[in-house]
Amino acid sequence: MREATASAPATSANLGPGFDSFGICFEKPMDRVWVRRTRGSGVAIKVSGRGARGIPRDPERNTAGRAALAVMRLAGAETGLEIRVWKGVRPGSGLGSSAASAAAAAVATARLLGLRVGKEELIGAAAEGEAAAAGDPHADNVAPAILGGFTIVRSLRPVEVIRLRPPSRMRLVAALPDVVVNTAYARKILPREIPLHMMVENVGHASTMVAALLKGDLELFGSAMRDEVVEPVRAKLIPGFEDVRGAALSAGAVAATVSGSGPAVLAVADAARCSPARVGRAMERAFEGHRLRCEVVVSGVGRGALAS
Amino acid sequence: MREATASAPATSANLGPGFDSFGICFEKPMDRVWVRRTRGSGVAIKVSGRGARGIPRDPERNTAGRAALAVMRLAGAETGLEIRVWKGVRPGSGLGSSAASAAAAAVATARLLGLRVGKEELIGAAAEGEAAAAGDPHADNVAPAILGGFTIVRSLRPVEVIRLRPPSRMRLVAALPDVVVNTAYARKILPREIPLHMMVENVGHASTMVAALLKGDLELFGSAMRDEVVEPVRAKLIPGFEDVRGAALSAGAVAATVSGSGPAVLAVADAARCSPARVGRAMERAFEGHRLRCEVVVSGVGRGALAS
Repeated sequence: MREATASAPATSANLGPGFDSFGICFEKPMDRVWVRRTRGSGVAIKVSGRGARGIPRDPERNTAGRAALAVMRLAGAETGLEIRVWKGVRPGSGLGSSAASAAAAAVATARLLGLRVGKEELIGAAAEGEAAAAGDPHADNVAPAILGGFTIVRSLRPVEVIRLRPPSRMRLVAALPDVVVNTAYARKILPREIPLHMMVENVGHASTMVAALLKGDLELFGSAMRDEVVEPVRAKLIPGFEDVRGAALSAGAVAATVSGSGPAVLAVADAARCSPARVGRAMERAFEGHRLRCEVVVSGVGRGALAS
Repeated sequence: MREATASAPATSANLGPGFDSFGICFEKPMDRVWVRRTRGSGVAIKVSGRGARGIPRDPERNTAGRAALAVMRLAGAETGLEIRVWKGVRPGSGLGSSAASAAAAAVATARLLGLRVGKEELIGAAAEGEAAAAGDPHADNVAPAILGGFTIVRSLRPVEVIRLRPPSRMRLVAALPDVVVNTAYARKILPREIPLHMMVENVGHASTMVAALLKGDLELFGSAMRDEVVEPVRAKLIPGFEDVRGAALSAGAVAATVSGSGPAVLAVADAARCSPARVGRAMERAFEGHRLRCEVVVSGVGRGALAS
């Protein structure tokens, strides 16, 4: 095959107590990555679409480039590569923008090279791509971007991921305010040590979320989406966070939290019990009350990356 | 009603990453508690059965007495009480001996007083009883002792518990060596603070266990029963722990860990894939290799306390 294309959607990591472990996949927006074999051994990258200007083109510093290189190593392939990335997911939004590029690049490159490996290997390669953006490889966004649904990353080396299928009436509502949160900084301000009782609480909440998902109980899922470890620290970087969360809950969302490292706020809604669009408008108005314009995404739970 | 009786079985708390949160109910052994109204307002306690001699009779220091008093407060009842506890669960074994007495006492007293409350209130009362043994109320043993199955204690105040039904082929194999572990000491030696990454690992493992349970995948359940926070500290109090765990796994168990604060070692086995009795014998022999006699319990997952 001379060329291949894949798309991968936005994702939201953490979901409260599942820091660095839980992730969920949107249906949209998506990044698209097109790859083509070229002569020689160089990797050339072009980026267009949302926020393209700020994205590095150096293959080692570009998440799509680095993911493609990881797949090439997996395949033992030596070829030049041309990569074109079209960004649909806004960079720096907290919606897994770099993961969407890395996941799409991994899937497209595997297709191009005819590489037949399990999805966990592809997640591993995409997680390497994430290291270009975050410094360390991590899989809490690329796992749901590739597998779809709700994912639990149990282990990164080797990659071990559990995928769960949320009830079809679950809706994700993300409000992206016009502020910039630096991912590296959002990680740096986290506590290095935490009191043991906080681990106990998060294990209890996270386990409850998983049980609720498998029982199809979105109310219970939302009530357990609580975190006192990471969320309070990151919420401070988002002006009006508490008001936005309050607005989402008042409009019928079952829970709201910081999406990844922010600034997006993720609300979870049960489409059978409230209007997800109304939740989105309420969050938008709450941000406006803090003089922040914001963009709202309302989505079902997505099925992950697609090669085409 | 003038008198009432209830029984409650042994339980195992923690199950690896679920410290202070996860618990599971045995079918046997059991404690039995008989309560009777008496004149006046005093509470008189008699204890017989296994390890009865070491158990305090003062109602405030006896778990059954304190649980009964908590139920009386819930009911707004003022009566004298005679309580007889028959111990089937060996005290200080790590199999929820005090919880079995507290749970049976709470259920029997509620029945005696005609108190109609939810099981979560009864768990709260029994958890008060646990404070007599442990200093603080906790519910990780009384929750499964009352509800049966596998339980997640999300919150103690108010009591919020999720109950899951493990696959019927799950077997619990406990090996109780002849050593004494002081529960208060086993708690005191725990770290007060832990690195953030350990929380991430335990959240991932614990969530995976819950997902595995609901998917009926005992292999996955066992592979996620890992903990680097509490288990390594408590395992040191059990001579030969690593050998006993190794023996259980070699005999076909899916996992083994410290039961509660020990000294019992809990193995989980899939009766469709191995002989749980053989797992028990292997654990017994491993303890013998460390010159420790031990008692083995092989049980299905129990249904919790029963009033009769």
